[in-house]
This record gives sequence, structure tokens and C-alpha cells, in this order.
Amino acid sequence: MIDVLAFDADDTLWHNETLFRDAQAEFRRLLARYHDEDWIEKRLYETEVRNLTHFGYGVKSFMLSMIETAIELTEGRIEGPEVQRILALGREIINAPIRVFDGVVETLDTLSRRYDMILITKGDLLHQESKIEASGLRDYFSQVEVVSRKEPVTYQRILERHRIDSSRFGMVGDSMKSDVLPVLSLGGWAFRVPNPLAWQHEHVDDEPTVPRYVHLESLSTLPGVLERLAGDADRSAAARAANSG
Amino acid sequence: MIDVLAFDADDTLWHNETLFRDAQAEFRRLLARYHDEDWIEKRLYETEVRNLTHFGYGVKSFMLSMIETAIELTEGRIEGPEVQRILALGREIINAPIRVFDGVVETLDTLSRRYDMILITKGDLLHQESKIEASGLRDYFSQVEVVSRKEPVTYQRILERHRIDSSRFGMVGDSMKSDVLPVLSLGGWAFRVPNPLAWQHEHVDDEPTVPRYVHLESLSTLPGVLERLAGDADRSAAARAANSG
Repeated sequence: MIDVLAFDADDTLWHNETLFRDAQAEFRRLLARYHDEDWIEKRLYETEVRNLTHFGYGVKSFMLSMIETAIELTEGRIEGPEVQRILALGREIINAPIRVFDGVVETLDTLSRRYDMILITKGDLLHQESKIEASGLRDYFSQVEVVSRKEPVTYQRILERHRIDSSRFGMVGDSMKSDVLPVLSLGGWAFRVPNPLAWQHEHVDDEPTVPRYVHLESLSTLPGVLERLAGDADRSAAARAANSG
Repeated sequence: MIDVLAFDADDTLWHNETLFRDAQAEFRRLLARYHDEDWIEKRLYETEVRNLTHFGYGVKSFMLSMIETAIELTEGRIEGPEVQRILALGREIINAPIRVFDGVVETLDTLSRRYDMILITKGDLLHQESKIEASGLRDYFSQVEVVSRKEPVTYQRILERHRIDSSRFGMVGDSMKSDVLPVLSLGGWAFRVPNPLAWQHEHVDDEPTVPRYVHLESLSTLPGVLERLAGDADRSAAARAANSG
């Protein structure tokens, strides 16, 4: 029923958002003598979203947005050493070791015996590639696609490039907006492992109620869920054969 | 003889380096009250090269390297409005209109009737994609590959992904280091259109002397060069046939 499984990387296979949260907390402390922390957080978020169109996703955009916000919020009074500290916060994210979530290796290992697996991730090209290599998970995937955004057309192009039928394609990820909705809109399957820390820009209010969407409690439950779905498909094919026989 | 032609984008199909040169000149003027211009240029270059490993190629890396250099060269005395000006210099590069070189459209149009063409470019993912769309040249290419670096393994992966035989693959670009040498090392063909403004990091001293390398005076001469090479291949095949007959 499903032949190809695609996985999101950040916050699906390994910790990511927590690094950004730590940097943001430090950024707020750095500017605490100029503004209260809620206001700093609000303004940083606005700058990040505004800059997505020019800079795209990823840690370099985040660094540039922190610097821009710091200049604006201090009305230019920000000082060299403070800007240097912001650059260091970004470098800490880039240099942080990859912490793969518990159970991921076993789950990928099980699934790789049955499915062709690809990785689809958005962000800074070099940073994403470095993380994939450092994760030790590279060999589970036949293809790695680093994309600038995750919209229906992004997935459409990947499906075409690899000649994958959307009805036999499943996407696994933490983001309703980036991993689930675009794939459902193309007639694919989507499996969501929620991440309580998700960046608010990825937030979508409602869970979809189509049968091709499955909410997972954890990634480790995916092999069982897929087996059950395949069993259901076999049984309904058998029932159709019996009815027509 | 050659079935697939790949093209570099920046400084091969359109102006790019000139935008970086203008920004650098402005950056030197901005710091002129702290240091002499040669020293600023030297230090910026060192910072850029040092940061390539962490940040990769592209305009966001360039912005971050300018900011870092400014802080270092002013020993932290750089002021908010100056950092803001540096951010603006980067944005000007991102928002600059694409100026396709003269003759490129006609050349791609001629070549597209005979060859499968792909685009292979390095830099910021979103910025490269935006430039390709804005150039109006997207439809000449069956695939677009934005890569984090251009090393032999990069080309090897692209050849494998698209099942291209390296001996039937030609790369067209301005950089000896990124476009020519890695492809020659894999047994492919390389066609170089030199760019007098090339970034010094792309510089290589000697021209290769292998027959699979061709130095072009301008991109417009490529169709004629390819025709001549195909003619030579036909004649030597005919000669072999005659000798063995």
C-alpha cells in the first residue's frame, strides 16, 4: 500500500528546537536591560517571519534576525560585544552535537527492511547535510532532499523526480503545516509525531480527519501502525475478490 | 558524444560577483575610519574562508562574515547603525535584479534542442532558487541542483542520481576549482568561460592540458565547439570502422 516513506529530520529524528529555545532565552537575557522579555520574544518572532521570504529557514537566518532585532530594540545602541555574543549563539547551534531521539535507530532499522526511505528536510543546506552525516542515520535513506520550504509543489517535484505515486507515499514528521497538510493535499499519507516544543510558525489549530492521516504517540509505534494499515488493505482486497468471485 | 550539459549559474549565466564587489567596497568605506582598505579586504577574506566550513557559501554567510570582521577590526567599537548598514548591503544583493549575460538566452535556446541540460549551482538554497526563477531561464533545464559545495563527490552523486555516464557529461562554468577540475577528475568534459572578477577563493593557477577541457572565449562559442567535437568523434569512429573493415 505504501512503498516509500519520507522522514522529516529536525524534531522528528533528533532534537533541534530545544537548541533554538536555549539561544532565544540567552538573547532575551542579553537585551534584558533594554526591554522586557515578552516584548523581545514577540519582536524576534516578527522579524524571523518577515525575513523568511528573503533569507529562508535555518540557523543563519535566525542569526541575522537576532542581530536585526537587537539593533531595532536598542535603537542602535547595541554594542559590538553584544553582537559578537549573538554570533556565538548561532555558532553554538551549528556546533551542537546531534542528539537522536530514543528509539529512532531501532524504528528506522525495522522500517528499512520493508520500505524505500528518503529524508526531506528544510533549512540551511550545509547545516542540514552536516547534521545528517553526524547523526549516523544517513545510510537508512536512499535519497536526501534539502528544500527551501515544504509546500505542496515541493513534494510534487520530489514525487515526480523519483517517480513515486502519491497514494503509495507516506510522510513522517512533527509539523502539521510542513509535513502533514501538503502531503495530504497531494493524496499521500501522513504520520505525525507531535513535538511539544514546535516553533509557533509551524502551528496549525486542527487535526485533519481524513483516513490517510495518523497521529502517532511516538515514532516507535510507526512499524505497528503501518502493519495494521497493510493488513486492513489486504483484507479489503480479499473481500473485494470474494465479492466479485 | 556528450548527451548532458550542466551549467553553473552565478557568473556563468548572469552577473553575480560584481554585486559582492560593490558590497565589499561599501564595507571598506564603512570601516575606513578604523583601518586602511587593503587590510579590511584581507581580513574580510580570511573571515569568509574560515567561515565556509560552518556557514557554507552564499550571501547570508557573507553578511555574517562582514559583521564578524567589523567587530574584530573595530575591537568591538562598531556601532548599531553600522551593523544595520552591513545587513542592508546583504539585502541589496538578495534583492538585486538578475542581469543575464548577453547571448546566454540564444545559446541555451540553441543547445536545448540537442542536449539534456541541468543547472548545478552552489550557495544559499532559497537565494539560488529565487535567482533561477527570476532569470527566466528555468525552463531550459530538466533539473536544478543547488549544492553546498562543488567537489568530485558532489558531481559523482548527481551523475549517479540521474544515471549519467561521466564520459557523456559536460560541465560549463567560470570556475576552474568548482566547475572544471572536479568534473575532469571523474572523466567528464569541462568548458570554461573565464570571469575576470572571479572570487580569489575560486582561483587556480594552471589551465589543465587534457583534451576533455576546452577554454571558451565566450559562452556563445559553445554550440560551435560542441559541433566540432561531435564531428571529430564521428570522423574517428568512421576511421576506426574503415580500418577494421
